[in-house]
Formats: sequence, C-alpha cells, structure tokens
Amino acid sequence: MPTSAALPLIAETIAIGTELLIGGKSDANSLFLAEELGKLGIEVRFKSVVGDTRSDIALTIGHAAKRAGVVIMTGGLGPTMDDCTREAVAHVTGRRLGKRKDALDALRARLAQWGRTPSRGQLRQAMIPSGATVLANPVGSAPGFCLTWKNSLIVSLPGVPREMEAMMVQKVMPILTSRLKDTKQMATPIVRQVFHTFGLPEADVDAKLKGLVPDRMPVDLGFLASPMGVLVSLTTKSGARKSRIAEDLLHPLARQVRGRLSEWLFAEGRETMEEIVGRLLTRHALTLAVAESCTGGLIGHRLTQVPGSSAYFDRGVVCYSNGAKMELLGVPTSLLEKYGAVSASVAAAMANGIRERSGTDIGLSATGIAGPDGGTATKPVGLVFVGLDGGEGGTITKEFRFHGDRHVIKQRSSQAALDLLRRWLIDRESK
Amino acid sequence: MPTSAALPLIAETIAIGTELLIGGKSDANSLFLAEELGKLGIEVRFKSVVGDTRSDIALTIGHAAKRAGVVIMTGGLGPTMDDCTREAVAHVTGRRLGKRKDALDALRARLAQWGRTPSRGQLRQAMIPSGATVLANPVGSAPGFCLTWKNSLIVSLPGVPREMEAMMVQKVMPILTSRLKDTKQMATPIVRQVFHTFGLPEADVDAKLKGLVPDRMPVDLGFLASPMGVLVSLTTKSGARKSRIAEDLLHPLARQVRGRLSEWLFAEGRETMEEIVGRLLTRHALTLAVAESCTGGLIGHRLTQVPGSSAYFDRGVVCYSNGAKMELLGVPTSLLEKYGAVSASVAAAMANGIRERSGTDIGLSATGIAGPDGGTATKPVGLVFVGLDGGEGGTITKEFRFHGDRHVIKQRSSQAALDLLRRWLIDRESK
Repeated sequence: MPTSAALPLIAETIAIGTELLIGGKSDANSLFLAEELGKLGIEVRFKSVVGDTRSDIALTIGHAAKRAGVVIMTGGLGPTMDDCTREAVAHVTGRRLGKRKDALDALRARLAQWGRTPSRGQLRQAMIPSGATVLANPVGSAPGFCLTWKNSLIVSLPGVPREMEAMMVQKVMPILTSRLKDTKQMATPIVRQVFHTFGLPEADVDAKLKGLVPDRMPVDLGFLASPMGVLVSLTTKSGARKSRIAEDLLHPLARQVRGRLSEWLFAEGRETMEEIVGRLLTRHALTLAVAESCTGGLIGHRLTQVPGSSAYFDRGVVCYSNGAKMELLGVPTSLLEKYGAVSASVAAAMANGIRERSGTDIGLSATGIAGPDGGTATKPVGLVFVGLDGGEGGTITKEFRFHGDRHVIKQRSSQAALDLLRRWLIDRESK
Repeated sequence: MPTSAALPLIAETIAIGTELLIGGKSDANSLFLAEELGKLGIEVRFKSVVGDTRSDIALTIGHAAKRAGVVIMTGGLGPTMDDCTREAVAHVTGRRLGKRKDALDALRARLAQWGRTPSRGQLRQAMIPSGATVLANPVGSAPGFCLTWKNSLIVSLPGVPREMEAMMVQKVMPILTSRLKDTKQMATPIVRQVFHTFGLPEADVDAKLKGLVPDRMPVDLGFLASPMGVLVSLTTKSGARKSRIAEDLLHPLARQVRGRLSEWLFAEGRETMEEIVGRLLTRHALTLAVAESCTGGLIGHRLTQVPGSSAYFDRGVVCYSNGAKMELLGVPTSLLEKYGAVSASVAAAMANGIRERSGTDIGLSATGIAGPDGGTATKPVGLVFVGLDGGEGGTITKEFRFHGDRHVIKQRSSQAALDLLRRWLIDRESK
C-alpha cells in the first residue's frame, strides 16, 4: 500500500448488481464481512447497493470514500460487458486500466485447470487499475484488487460468497492487519453476541431486558423480530475503551441476558432451532418422526437441513387430506368428525400415530389453518395445534393463534412444534 | 410541496436499522418500492442501508439527495430511543422538530382503537420536522412525513412492509404524481419483465439470448443465478423514448425470450415453480403425492406454499431411513441392496410406491446425497435421482449431479423434481 496514514476504523460495503438493487434477495455477504472486519475493530457502518452502471458505481465509491476508511465492493468483476467495477474504480480514482501480467497468468492457470482457455470477455478480468495490488482468487477465475485512495482502502472482490470469503480471509485481512500495525492503530475487536428467542412478542423481550446495558457502557443492544422469533444482539462499539477487552464487557451482560430470557432463549450465535433440537436428540440417543398437516413438510425440511440428521430423524409424513391422516397415522374417523382436523385431539392422535407406526422414541405433529381460506369464526386462519408423544404415557399439545400470511403461519407453526420438542427434551434432562 | 422544480427521475431507498446492516435478512421492501416508482418512470438506482445512528443517517440522506430526486427512507420511526430518523432528517435539512397536531391526533386515535393511550416514547412519534407534510399511517401507529430539500423529495416511512406499502400507495404515489404533473415531466413508466429458467447454466442462458437486445434500444437485459435457476430480466430504461410505449418495446423481445429459452423457461413474473405445477395439476384435475428422501420435506413444503394446494396435493412421506422406504413405500429390500438407496431404481420404486399407496394420479420422488458426508467415489455428494410415476405404465427418472452445500443441493433437488413434473404435465397436454 503506498500511503500509511491512519485508517478511519469505519467500513462501507458496496454490493454491485442491478438485480441486487431490485430483488428481494438476501445479501449473504454482509454478515461475513461485518464479522471479519469486526475482528480488527473496524465497524461496518454503511452498506450500499448499486446497479451495473459505471457512473453510478463511481459515484457510490466517491461517497463511500468520504465516510469510510475501508470500502469493500463485491460483484461486477465477471467476464460479461455488464461487469464494470474495474472501469468504475479506474475512472473515479483517476487511474489507468491496464492488463496486468500477474492477474493474467493466474487467470490462464485457473482456466487451464478447468481445461479451458480465456475468452475475450475473460481476458478483461485481468484489467487492473494502475498502482492497485492484485488479489488472487483461490477458488474462481476473477481476480480482485485493492488500492488506497483519499485515505481509504478500496477493495474489489467477486460477488460469489465462496470466492469473496476466501479472498477476504487470505488476502484482505492480512493487508488490513499490517496496515493497522504500520499506523500503530490499536485494534480493539468489535464483538457481537446474538441470542434467539421464540414465543415472546418484541415488546416483552424489550421489557425483560430493560436497564440491562448501563448508560455510557460502549455496548449496543439490538432487536430484530421475524416469524422465527425475536433476535437480541449485544455489540461492543468501535473504539470501546482499550483498558477492557470486549469479551470482559459482554460476558456479564450475556449471563444476564440468559437469565432474563430464560426458557424463551433457544439458541445463541448462528445456531438454529433445528440444530439445537438435533443436538439434544443426539445427546439422549432418541429418534424422531414427524406428522405434518399445515406445515406441509417444513418441519422435516428444517430437521434435515442439519448434517447428520439421519442419525435421529427417521421419517415424516405430510398428511394434507383426512384420508392420509387416517391411513398413514391411524387417526380415528370419529375424532376427525367430532373435533375436526384442526384440534388438540387430532394433534395428539397424529403425534401418537406417527410414533407408534414408525417405532421411534418421539412423535411430533402440527395441524392448523394456514389460510388464506379455510378459516371460520371458531377456527380462524392462524389457529394451530402442535403435539408431542414421548411414549411415556399421554401426549402434550399446545394451541397457538398466529397472525400473518400463509408463509408466515407455516414458519411460525414449524418453529412452535420444534420449540415444544426442545422444551420437552430439556425438561426431561432436569428430571 | 413548497417548490416545483423538475424532479430528477432517479430514486434512492435508504433502509434504516443496525440489524439490517449486519444481518443476512432479505430486504423485502426494495422490490415493491422499485415497482411503484417505476410506474411513474422513476428508477431506483441506489440503495443504502445504515444503522440507528443519527449522524450516520444524516450523512446518508445528504449523499442521497445529491444523486437522487426521490429519497425513500424506511424504518427508524418507532417509539424507542433507537429510532432517530426524525431527528436525523431535521438535523440534516436544518428544520426544527416539533410535535404536530395532525400527527398527534392520528396517533391517539389509532392507539385508542387498540384500547391504549400513548406512552412517552409513542408521543415522540408525533414529532415532525417543520414544513414537512405528515403522511398518515392507515395500518399502524407511526406517522411518516415528506419534505422537499435541495430539489429532492425526502420521504420517511415505517419499515414494516404492510405499513410502508399502504402509505406508499395511498400517500406518496399521489404526491409524486401531482409533483410530476406540476413540473410537466413526462412520466414514461419503467417496465420490467422477468423470466425464470431451470436446468441451464448462466453461460448457456446468456448464449441463447445473445444479440437479443439491439444496440441503442433503451432496454437492459439482466441475469441472476440462484440454486433455483437463472432469472432473466428485461427492463426499459428511465427516459425511454416517449414516442414508443415501454410495453411495445418489450413485447417483441419477450416473445423472442420465450422462443429462445423454450422448455427451460418455467415461469414469468412473480410466479414460482410450485404455482405453475399447481396450476397444471388443477387444469387437468390430477392429484399428487410425493416421496422424499434427500429433500427431507422441502418438496411438500413448497407445494403447500400455494393457497388451495389441498385440492391436488394429497400427501407426502419423508423416508429418511431405509426402513421407512420399505414400510411407507414398499420399496423392495432387494432393490435397496442391489442398487443402493440413491439410484434410479429406488427413485422409480419410491414414485411408484407413493402413487399406489395413496391412490393419487401421480407419484413424485427424490433420493440423493445432500452431504456433506455420505458421498463415495461412485456416488458423490450431489448425486440425485428424481422419479415420476404417472400411472400410464413405466416411471421416468432423471439423474443430476449438483454442486453446492447441503442446503443448495436440497433446493436444487426439489426444483429438479418439480421441473420433471412440470415437463411431464406439459408433454401430456401436447399429446
């Protein structure tokens, strides 16, 4: 890097791509970049998305460099004419764009590995702004690059998560680290701890955590509500007093969060409900089968997202019709007629039926009205029953009245069923 | 609106919230805003995300106003101290923040409806920058507002999609329309048409559409690859020649896209594979049952995302264990032993088994190795077979070798199974 002035410890990420601008596509790169940069005490404070238009990208880089010391761009490095990140960076920084031997050699080598020679479009990928450092791509073909401009480090990486992640860890982090060392900038890592709750509205979670973080403590308390529950986060602020290590600051707060959220807290960090349930089942060497109606297969899908779930998940049935409930689970016609398919009795019979027929230790069930049609005055859309039979005499069921559209009600129902299982497994441990 | 200078037909959206900055949460508001603004010929060219920090929000608004004529902020209007959009707008535009009677009355009325009186935090929601127009919230409690600053229209809306959407349609669109009328700005709508393909790599889709859009035609051709396939979009540029209506421009292009993508094109617009399949099943009054192994319930989950799917979807079984495959589907032990659970023969037996046992017209199946473990040299992770039995003698199966992690392989497998069904239903029509 040519200059070694102090780097403002503020980062901006720029995702490049017209489809990203419009689409409801989730940006998977943000969390990764925030976590990596946080390790060096660099806080992602701004995120921009811009289409594949050279002048718009140039404008966005210009604004980003004014407010952030580290600007990480993802995307727009591909071989098609759409891809114009290289040109935009050269334009805004006033550099010349030229074919670079190190980039070209790496590109040829990578394509040769795949038994191909570079097309004209692919040769464009070796065009790099003058004075920039080439960042080799250990996974794909597009090289990245970085350069210093106006006291900001401008980094350009591919948009493909696997490639971006490898280049960030292997190339960008060492450059940032040595740059911070050169300028003697103390890097107090930003630490973030995340807690996942289910079953409490956001206002109640907020109330339970009232007064948790003392005034002037450099920690942010955040909330994010979704159909899967309310997420709580504790994040140390950039530049938290160096005399105290961030972990020391968060440790007692995290303990308090756990105490206050108690049974509503189902996971921490990146763990999901299905992973937690899977771990509890594995620990107790218990097997599971599920009987789904309104969730349509979502509970099975979620359980099998976990690698190795075949060790405890035996089977599932999706019994959408009453016929399927009777044939696959032996739910008595009399129950269906007397209470209806959406009832505590049928949820119990489904859990019992799947457990007995599959020979697993536990049967789990869900039945409800996902909508938008099918609701009545007494059984409205969103009415859901989940059931569990643990084979120890008697099944448990739980009733919910969810709001939201069909997709949200299905998600909440699957979460409710898995949470019932989680609570049952934990109760069993304490017996 | 105080001024009536011409409005640059460029928009920027700003999503406010620290969790949005970090999280991998999909931004559901973008597509809606782009479509609404596009109707008036206003193009969303920039998207920003910023945390709940007053000075950062102010900085972002400042940059946005420089490059966009319409700036739409979502979020940060809630009752907690985190919510500081109001303060940021007042600060950056140099307005005073004061309690506004119209906002306060509406807030009290809304809360009274819910049997509540405003808390101190909620009263803050009636604080509006001086000179701004209050935008009533027909769904929730937080009012929005808009004001003109530096030749940009700055709009602040709640982040909750339902509230944002209602206010956008009922309040913001009429204001924008009359503003464009006042300044005699021709509003050529931006039209976007989306095509969904499955089964072809992005490079092949690109090749098939080569030369589609003539040079200088004001239409953008876009691509977006995902595990569900490659999306193709045609979008008219803002300021497309007024002499031709955007639809006229796209119509012949869309016809060409359909011709060139032929059988690989499975849906257009917002339609999903499961909706297309559902419509075909409904049209032919056919019923379906599915037998899933590696997809773990995902096919059933997707089919039941469609309202009214109970009319054609009877049941599903998730047979993760070999025992389940034999008991629930009657897959012969000999087949499992000879070919293994991941084989064309077992996929066929599963499709046949579920169709016969459920008495539906069609049986659909998927079996494969989702990984990360369980792969061998001859049967690697990503090897997937899908099968279909339509009851007309003989089942069809198809083999795939997918790349990606467990989640991606499951998604691709479910898409492959549903696409097999789609193609079969369409073939049947042409017979």
